[in-house]
Amino acid sequence: MRIITSITEMQQQADRFRQEGKSIGLVPTMGYLHEGHLSLIREAKKRSNVVVMSIYVNPIQFSPNEDLEDYPRDFKRDVELAQAAGCDIIFYPDSNQVYPGEYLTYVNVEEITGVLCGISRPTHFRGVTTIVAKLFNIVKPHLAVFGQKDAQQALVIKRMVADLNFDIKIIMAPIVRERDGLAMSSRNTYLSQGQRNQAAALSQALFEAKEKIVEGERNAAILKKLISSRLENLSDGEIDYIEIVETTLLSPVQTLAGEILVALAVKIGKTRLIDNIIIEV
Amino acid sequence: MRIITSITEMQQQADRFRQEGKSIGLVPTMGYLHEGHLSLIREAKKRSNVVVMSIYVNPIQFSPNEDLEDYPRDFKRDVELAQAAGCDIIFYPDSNQVYPGEYLTYVNVEEITGVLCGISRPTHFRGVTTIVAKLFNIVKPHLAVFGQKDAQQALVIKRMVADLNFDIKIIMAPIVRERDGLAMSSRNTYLSQGQRNQAAALSQALFEAKEKIVEGERNAAILKKLISSRLENLSDGEIDYIEIVETTLLSPVQTLAGEILVALAVKIGKTRLIDNIIIEV
Repeated sequence: MRIITSITEMQQQADRFRQEGKSIGLVPTMGYLHEGHLSLIREAKKRSNVVVMSIYVNPIQFSPNEDLEDYPRDFKRDVELAQAAGCDIIFYPDSNQVYPGEYLTYVNVEEITGVLCGISRPTHFRGVTTIVAKLFNIVKPHLAVFGQKDAQQALVIKRMVADLNFDIKIIMAPIVRERDGLAMSSRNTYLSQGQRNQAAALSQALFEAKEKIVEGERNAAILKKLISSRLENLSDGEIDYIEIVETTLLSPVQTLAGEILVALAVKIGKTRLIDNIIIEV
Repeated sequence: MRIITSITEMQQQADRFRQEGKSIGLVPTMGYLHEGHLSLIREAKKRSNVVVMSIYVNPIQFSPNEDLEDYPRDFKRDVELAQAAGCDIIFYPDSNQVYPGEYLTYVNVEEITGVLCGISRPTHFRGVTTIVAKLFNIVKPHLAVFGQKDAQQALVIKRMVADLNFDIKIIMAPIVRERDGLAMSSRNTYLSQGQRNQAAALSQALFEAKEKIVEGERNAAILKKLISSRLENLSDGEIDYIEIVETTLLSPVQTLAGEILVALAVKIGKTRLIDNIIIEV
């Protein structure tokens, strides 16, 4: 496995792979890898000749009041884990190169970035689409794999790719969960043991809702109330949102039909956690 | 010469060229070709194996009160002229393909799009950068050629390319002028004979200013006053702006130094004309 830190070198390497007829799979991450990230490497490996994982904590997707400074980092451990999972190249640029002094350009997907997580994080998705557009131009992948844990992110990127005609296939890979159901996240490390125990309620509430949907429940209000009832009494919990939307424009539905995203965000102490299920009804 | 109308077909053709080791030069246009456009084809031809000219009147770079409907079109003539100039492929997509029903994504360069032409055309450059980003992802060029007539556009695109890490070289080709100095533009066709005669004053004022700069004048206020004095008495003329700026952030200068853009926009009747000179002092 190689580590590339230069943007130009990454582009030249991508050109060489393409000239050799090799397909490139990209897994964009902010590092501090867990089993979720590693599953994305494996997914990319199945579908492409060369897997590039980018590790970059992207400042412009954090608001000033968020956890940019505290975001967990452990590059040495990341390298070992990525290599063991079959990654071929880690792209690890430094910030001065990514956003030089006079940086002025942003990619923005409208409407679907102003709902769900976009309400409490109004500039977040603009930061995500901008860095991902840059990574696409640097790594020149044939496909890119994103985790369903950040379902809105994956759907926003799919939209950007379609709208801007990036010739790149976007794969959304399933959520990897801890034994009690908690969706894996680098931010889980912020939780105290007591908070960690409470956090299991997020996925449990979603699974209960899923069961009701499978049994035939189609009323979004009833389902949201069920989820809310499981989350509103957590001692350290504060619900940010619980929403049931269709997956194209992320518009709320009253009656479930077609492909549905049930998504929620809950603050446990100071840690904001998200989780979701996608279900075809 | 081939005409390609399908986005997918253009992408596949671009992939084939690249796999064959051929370099691709892109000349993005809105058609109604004149000698200025043809000079861009020749410039692209000198520097690349294959020249693709796109012809597309991009609706999102026009404001509702502008001339989208009236913009001159003559595809048959364009095909003949492009072929004679050495163009290899015309990419001629239709609007439903370029902006399908639920289009949501825009590329925006901040700050330098809010000055000069950006003041009277506040959404113009966002439309330009968005379509050019799309064309870059569709045609996959190694280089793209833009005319200096739209100097701000070329500088904005250079900035987008640098910021978003597009691996594409941007060439700004010199303005091609009519015998009396008027910069060639598809919009010159809107002018009556009387207006056409007055329009020559734009370039003449710029040339006079250039002469003064060459002679040693460095005071921007004096130069702007000189240009203004040549333009303010045109019977059908209305000055939009006369500005002297540096070419990185397009900030106004008081004393000329380094690379300088002297740019102006004047309405002659209902037709808005622009012209400029770039000079290293």
